[in-house]
Amino acid sequence: MEQDVLPVGLERDARHLVTLEPGKAVLTRRNLVSAAASLAASGALGAAPGKAAAETIPSRPEWQQRPGAELMSPPYGAPSARESQVIRRARHGSPPPPTNYAGISLTPHQNLYGIVTPGGLHYERHHSGVPDIDPDQHRLLVHGLVERPLIFTMDDLTRFPSVSRLHFLECSGNTPTWGVPKPGLTVQDTHGLLSCSEWTGVPLATVLAEAGVRPEGKWLLAEGGDAAALTRSIPIEKAFDDALLVYAQNGERLRPEQGYPLRLLLPGFEGNTSIKWLRRLKIGTAPFQTRWETSKYSLVLPDQTIRQFDFVMDAKSVITSPSGGQSLKGTGFHEISGLAWSGRGKITRVEVSTDGGTSWHDAALQEPVLSKCLTRFRFPWQWEGAPARLASRSTDASGYVQPSRAALESIRDGRSYYHNNAIQTWAVAANGSVVNA
Amino acid sequence: MEQDVLPVGLERDARHLVTLEPGKAVLTRRNLVSAAASLAASGALGAAPGKAAAETIPSRPEWQQRPGAELMSPPYGAPSARESQVIRRARHGSPPPPTNYAGISLTPHQNLYGIVTPGGLHYERHHSGVPDIDPDQHRLLVHGLVERPLIFTMDDLTRFPSVSRLHFLECSGNTPTWGVPKPGLTVQDTHGLLSCSEWTGVPLATVLAEAGVRPEGKWLLAEGGDAAALTRSIPIEKAFDDALLVYAQNGERLRPEQGYPLRLLLPGFEGNTSIKWLRRLKIGTAPFQTRWETSKYSLVLPDQTIRQFDFVMDAKSVITSPSGGQSLKGTGFHEISGLAWSGRGKITRVEVSTDGGTSWHDAALQEPVLSKCLTRFRFPWQWEGAPARLASRSTDASGYVQPSRAALESIRDGRSYYHNNAIQTWAVAANGSVVNA
Repeated sequence: MEQDVLPVGLERDARHLVTLEPGKAVLTRRNLVSAAASLAASGALGAAPGKAAAETIPSRPEWQQRPGAELMSPPYGAPSARESQVIRRARHGSPPPPTNYAGISLTPHQNLYGIVTPGGLHYERHHSGVPDIDPDQHRLLVHGLVERPLIFTMDDLTRFPSVSRLHFLECSGNTPTWGVPKPGLTVQDTHGLLSCSEWTGVPLATVLAEAGVRPEGKWLLAEGGDAAALTRSIPIEKAFDDALLVYAQNGERLRPEQGYPLRLLLPGFEGNTSIKWLRRLKIGTAPFQTRWETSKYSLVLPDQTIRQFDFVMDAKSVITSPSGGQSLKGTGFHEISGLAWSGRGKITRVEVSTDGGTSWHDAALQEPVLSKCLTRFRFPWQWEGAPARLASRSTDASGYVQPSRAALESIRDGRSYYHNNAIQTWAVAANGSVVNA
Repeated sequence: MEQDVLPVGLERDARHLVTLEPGKAVLTRRNLVSAAASLAASGALGAAPGKAAAETIPSRPEWQQRPGAELMSPPYGAPSARESQVIRRARHGSPPPPTNYAGISLTPHQNLYGIVTPGGLHYERHHSGVPDIDPDQHRLLVHGLVERPLIFTMDDLTRFPSVSRLHFLECSGNTPTWGVPKPGLTVQDTHGLLSCSEWTGVPLATVLAEAGVRPEGKWLLAEGGDAAALTRSIPIEKAFDDALLVYAQNGERLRPEQGYPLRLLLPGFEGNTSIKWLRRLKIGTAPFQTRWETSKYSLVLPDQTIRQFDFVMDAKSVITSPSGGQSLKGTGFHEISGLAWSGRGKITRVEVSTDGGTSWHDAALQEPVLSKCLTRFRFPWQWEGAPARLASRSTDASGYVQPSRAALESIRDGRSYYHNNAIQTWAVAANGSVVNA
């Protein structure tokens, strides 16, 4: 199909064009190469577009010679089969989970753009599989230290005034990469327990106001409706601040693996506290000390004390392109792009280093920059072909600056891998290959 | 499974709770009814939560008695099978398209929340089916009145600096409902050729700067790579303003039916100008007068003149809940919710009427309010049970106010149904049923 000369047939075939003059648009390989040379000379974007101009265009590609799929797309569509490698998966090199009912799947950030994570690629963390819940039978119980214990159907809950907000969700076990970096890890391995959606739900404060929380009620127990009955204790302040009872995600009802038909969402808190398949909220005076906050989801500190209820995910960022496993195709211009987020509010600054942290430069933040939401950053980079070390560092509205790995490891015990928000470095070799460093 | 008394078993079964005291949470049907009565007396939200409290909660529902699906969710997930009715479909009552290669599918806004449309539910309009394009073979040609004709591969294009923006896309044929309203239409029928995504792509201005548009170049021809070779003429000002060469949508690569691997996106312009499967851009001095802008996509005016190149989608809005085909479940509080948008910038105001336009009240606009993007609005409503007529009216940053149907029909000819941005009314009957009016 490829031809040396762009045929006038291109224009004849576009039979609906009435004002075009065949012959005028003939491009030879020579003048295309010439165009490439002039472009390269301009230096604006390095080698990228020059490579383009050195090729020719087929007259009419195969897919333009006959109609497309005879029927319409499916009533509920799917990505192109040509993108079948863009999937969530378990972490490379991890042992298999003890049962088939528990495990994780990771979002492929190396293949994603912008800030919205498609529903089909949202990360997962399950402790007892994904239950198949009938929304008509599902109930939410609100009880404990309340004036009026209440039970809600899904229809009841969705009658309350709703809000929609874009928020990230990150597992506290995201980035379990302490110690010597494993070169083979991709950003899906290191940062795949992170996703971002537009969530729609009812403010928890509204429902609690209906039940009437008694003055001595200071903590809230949230229980999941799966077989694991995952339970976490939540400070009542968070419940009255921005907590949501979520029933929709990215426009549609929650996906089963995200808690269909109802989940708690605690913006900025570690993911496991945003209880999925939510069936019960109990108000109490103190933390309930469930196994999920004694044997798990707590931090061992270097002095061997335990830090519990370390809810907020601090400012963090990661370069998603180029990242581990990718390869730079040629020297010249490359856009460095990544994600930044903080559980304490908006991201105010992202800096990028290409020399492993010796020098830092401000990256551009893609609008809209939203609170407790992923922020896409971009940084223009001219790669001259020498080895490089790429890293990003975020600052949030509280003034907190993402720490180096060394700084973070100095205040943690290696046994507790949670809440690793250290700076991530990718090493670029002279041949363009990129590995975890 | 339903029991009259909430069993203490609920707490025993939640075996990881160590501080709960069995027996304390016992609720009888009597005190639940009592709770409902006190809630109804408070009047805060009408009958909604009272209905909830009149029920009981099963001790351990079926799905909590055993683990969920043994394997993890699919590598690329899908909605719950229980939401199988939330699909795109053709318009009710429309004749079938002349071939299986052309047609539309409509976004089910009656089932959606927030502003993001899931990729699987984005509306479609195809003229010759959905081509299956190999991204490695796909090329974009930029030629005509340029200094340097250029051909780009997908890898070339994605090397340029990108931007991500949330924008609506609306077919100019959305809402073809002139004349006597058909009561059976739903919002999917009336407003389903409208969707909203986070788009990622390269500013067209960047690529045109590489090619070097000659001073006499004033219009741009964009051609699709499908068998229909859909072609539209675009003013060069739009190309240099906010036009994008888009390769990703809602985080992932474009869906096939949205132009995989490359489409033009002209924010705020009628959807057909955002050419899918984009393969060619030619710069010229004047509009190219393709059949798509002579026999189609032009407006007949009452004086029998033709208006061509009526690109911008003016301010519009629609109530999505409650809407045609839905039914109010009981009197009392209902949140009226809907979407507003304008091709000229941000929505600045949405007003809601419950009496068919006699009186108007400001609705709340859900943040973030973005330019040329859907804006979700919400309005609290106490329904007393009388027939009502619900309508919404939007105003955009240019000061333009969405017109009534009568006002719009007075300046249009009925034969050209494009660009109908009239106020939409839904009639609520005393039994709660909602129909198009």
